[in-house]
Formats: sequence, structure tokens, C-alpha cells
Amino acid sequence: MFDSAIIGGGPAAMSAALNLKIRNKSFIMLAGNEKVTGLSKAPSIDNYLGINSISGAELLLSFEKHLRDMEIEKKNEMAYNILNMGDYFAINAGSNFYDAKTLIIATGKAKNSLIEGEERYLGMGVGYCATCDGPLYKNKAVAIVSENEEGEEEARFLSEICSKVYYLPLYKTSFEEINGIEVIKAKPISVIGNENRVTSLSTSKGNIDVDAVFFIRNVLPVNQLLEGLELEDGSIKVDRLMATSIPGVYACGDCAGKPFQISKAVGEGSTAALSAVKYLDSSVEVK
Amino acid sequence: MFDSAIIGGGPAAMSAALNLKIRNKSFIMLAGNEKVTGLSKAPSIDNYLGINSISGAELLLSFEKHLRDMEIEKKNEMAYNILNMGDYFAINAGSNFYDAKTLIIATGKAKNSLIEGEERYLGMGVGYCATCDGPLYKNKAVAIVSENEEGEEEARFLSEICSKVYYLPLYKTSFEEINGIEVIKAKPISVIGNENRVTSLSTSKGNIDVDAVFFIRNVLPVNQLLEGLELEDGSIKVDRLMATSIPGVYACGDCAGKPFQISKAVGEGSTAALSAVKYLDSSVEVK
Repeated sequence: MFDSAIIGGGPAAMSAALNLKIRNKSFIMLAGNEKVTGLSKAPSIDNYLGINSISGAELLLSFEKHLRDMEIEKKNEMAYNILNMGDYFAINAGSNFYDAKTLIIATGKAKNSLIEGEERYLGMGVGYCATCDGPLYKNKAVAIVSENEEGEEEARFLSEICSKVYYLPLYKTSFEEINGIEVIKAKPISVIGNENRVTSLSTSKGNIDVDAVFFIRNVLPVNQLLEGLELEDGSIKVDRLMATSIPGVYACGDCAGKPFQISKAVGEGSTAALSAVKYLDSSVEVK
Repeated sequence: MFDSAIIGGGPAAMSAALNLKIRNKSFIMLAGNEKVTGLSKAPSIDNYLGINSISGAELLLSFEKHLRDMEIEKKNEMAYNILNMGDYFAINAGSNFYDAKTLIIATGKAKNSLIEGEERYLGMGVGYCATCDGPLYKNKAVAIVSENEEGEEEARFLSEICSKVYYLPLYKTSFEEINGIEVIKAKPISVIGNENRVTSLSTSKGNIDVDAVFFIRNVLPVNQLLEGLELEDGSIKVDRLMATSIPGVYACGDCAGKPFQISKAVGEGSTAALSAVKYLDSSVEVK
């Protein structure tokens, strides 16, 4: 049981980690797919006080170095789903499960790009983690819609189980057809189904008959991550101390709203961590 | 007429300045007495992401360098009073006056150390700026209660006008009696007066008969700075975008509440500046 789990790996998450470490709290940092970050592409950043005229990539390196110096480990695992167990949280990170007394959510800018039917059929054929739910579709046809290369591994895994895997990459890739994987370069339009099951995926190049559609996203829709999190204008609703609508859960950085700035994310990460520490120190120990 | 006036000179104020500069807004930064800062005394700071194991003094130097590199000037002037003129703000900084369309208040941790009678007699003998109000007490006896060396200059100035100046330093100093200045090492207890005027200052070493008491503070009580600013738990009440209860006025850093952390102050400074920019860009031009 960790004192805290940090969900994310960007500036807000890293800042939260520093503060938890300094306050001697045990924590796990689930950074997800590290390759994906807007910051690493910024040509020049001038408004992070104390570090002038630096590229986003270099600034990230200095952030990473700070974490290494303090012996903080980022795990390249993605949290797919979190259950509120009352006095702790159970985190499903694909092949691993973790328990933590508090959560610090720093998943970055939420994308409101759910396609039609995606939410409607969630858990009825729509999923976000092929590793988790794949076995349910043994000998069936499935589609994977992926925003990044992680989906290719998921496709290989599913091709061992399923009768057919359709792979729709939403990024540039030279990924090729192998053993029952068919790569389709098309835009997904909607998930179609009957009353309680997915039956097909509609795309810009026609319909594909499948029993399941997995979406591999850079950022998971936050309301899929943890049930009951109150949102406001598409971001996680927080107060000035970064507390969300769920006790013990804090959010920081872009997922907690505008402006999308590094210094704001870093400041909020620090505040979220200190609020979690306060919560932990005032809580009765979980047995 | 400036687009914005930044009141303060610490991390939040500096971060706000960077962002206003990048956004091409005209502004003035009234940093007050620079010598006074808690940050400069911190032996080691480990939780400002990207800059590890640094003393407060060194971190401040890197902040100051960033400002110089961007050609941002800090003025060592203190804002004593600000009037809300409806579509702009008039700032009294002692011998200078400035007008600005927006305000960014970053005055640091508010101290709730008003002494008895101080607020009661404000403007009736109690003042915060000897340079401003001194001439009203020509040939009269006044007391100066000062938290820093700035008070010594004020005392010298008043000694040329007033019949007698009592100087109560609340810091270590070797400041000596000269031309009608009497240094009293005592704790001020209360301001005493009749219905509408100050008559004396009560101290730990007895009463002193005076017509005025000037308090020279490191941080001005924020509700003396600008009338109508809503407070909450002794801090300036702000929303998530750093907007205060007065349109066009933003607050950031320690004066906007806990936690008192550099990264939080820096993040909020950035947000406050961006909110001011948005306000300016959406406002009708002041003629």
C-alpha cells in the first residue's frame, strides 16, 4: 500500500513527486507512455522563472535529472482504471495492480475526442486496455484504434488470441500486416452495436465487423479513469488546494484546467502533493 | 498609462513580469524594499523542479538574472495606496504616482500584526508613508514604528519638518539620535486618540505623546492597499485564474494563500499575468 499514486509523468506529476519524496511519503509514479508530450516539442521556453531561453526538450531533461538526483523512479506504466475502495484506491495498470491511500492525477490536457458510440458501449465491447480485456474476445474479431506505437504491441498480443485484428493507426507508422493483423489507414467514425454489444466499427473507408474496439490513447478520458470525479468545462474540478470532488484525490496541471503553462503545472503539482501529505497525516492509518 | 502594475518583487511578481513582457504588455513593477525576503534566507531548496539543491539566495539570483536577460526593470518603490478609478487604477508610490489598467498584487505573506488602534486611526494620524503624509504634521511630534531600515530615511526626512520624531525600530540597528530624532527601543502596544485624532502611542516603555504614528512595514496590510478587496482567511480571495473580487485585479503568490511555496508562487504569477492579458485584450481601450 503506497501513501500516494501519481498518475502521469509530466511537469505537474514530477513536481508532485519531488514534494512527496521530501515529505518522506511512499509513492508510485505511473507515467504512462513517456514518448508523448507537447513540452518536448516546444522550440523555446522563456517563461519558466530561473531557466531562460531553453528548448522544451532541454527543460524536460533538467526536470528528469532533478528526479534522478532525488532517486525518484518513473514507471512507464499506464493507469487504465482506478477503483475507489473507500479508504484507499485500487489502480489497474494493465499487467500490474497497485493500492494507494491517495491519488494525484496529472494526466495532462484532456482530449474530448470520444467518437460516437464510444462511451455508450464502454465495457460492452469498447475498452482502453487490450492487455486487460483482450482475453474476453478469444477467437473473435477486434479493432484497435491507436494514437501511438503502444497499440502495435497490443495488436501483436491480441493477434495471438483473436481470430482477426484490425489496426487503425492515428499516427505515422510503417507497422505492417502480420499473422492476422490487418492495418487499415482510415478515420474511425463511430462504434455501432445492438442493445448491449458492439457489432462493428464505422470508418472513413467503410464498416468493419468486430466484437470489440480498443482505443489506445495518449491521454485517457479522465472520467473513464476514476468514477465520480466531478468535471468543469472538460477539466477536473479542483479547489485552490487542488482537492477534487473525491476525498484523498488531488489533480494538478493541464488536466485541472487552463492556462496550459509549465510553471502553473509545476506549482499545482507541489500544492497537490502537500495537500495529499496533509490528508495522509490527518487520516487514521489504513490497516 | 500602463497596461498593468505589478505590486511586489518576489517570485510570483517576477513570474508575472516575464509573462507580461512576452505578451508585449507595458507594465511597471513596484518591488518595494528588496532587502526583505524570506526566500533569500533559505539554506537549501530542493523542490523547485529543474533546479536542484540550491540556496534561496542563489535561486533568487537566477530569477533576477532571468529578468535582466529579458530587460525587465524592478523599481524599488513601494505602493502605499491604490485607488480604483473605475476603468483604471491610480497608484500612490510615495513620491511617484502611476496609472495602470490592471493590477497584479504579489505582496507576499500577509502579516496580521496590526496593533490596537492602528486601523481605528488610519488617516486620522496613522499612516504608512511618511513621505506622503509627513507634511501634514509640520512642527508636531510624530512616531515611526519601522520593521526595516527604510524607516531611518523617513525619520531623517520627518526630522526636518516635525518638532520631534520618536523612532521605534523593530529590527536590529545602530541608528542613532540626531537632530530631534529620539530612538526608543520599545514594543508598540496601541495607538491612543480622542474621537478623531491620534494623541499618543502606548509602548512597552510607557506612553509617548504624538500627533501621528507611521508604520513602516515589510508588507503592507493588503486591505489598506486597495479598498474593497475581498479576503478569505487573511489572504486575498482569488479564483482558479487568480481573479480577485475586483475586475482587472489579480493576486498571486503568498498573499493569495497557502501553501507558501516558490513553485506555487511562480505558477500563480504566470496565471495572473495571462488572466490580466486576457482582460486587457477583451476590454475597450481606455481613452
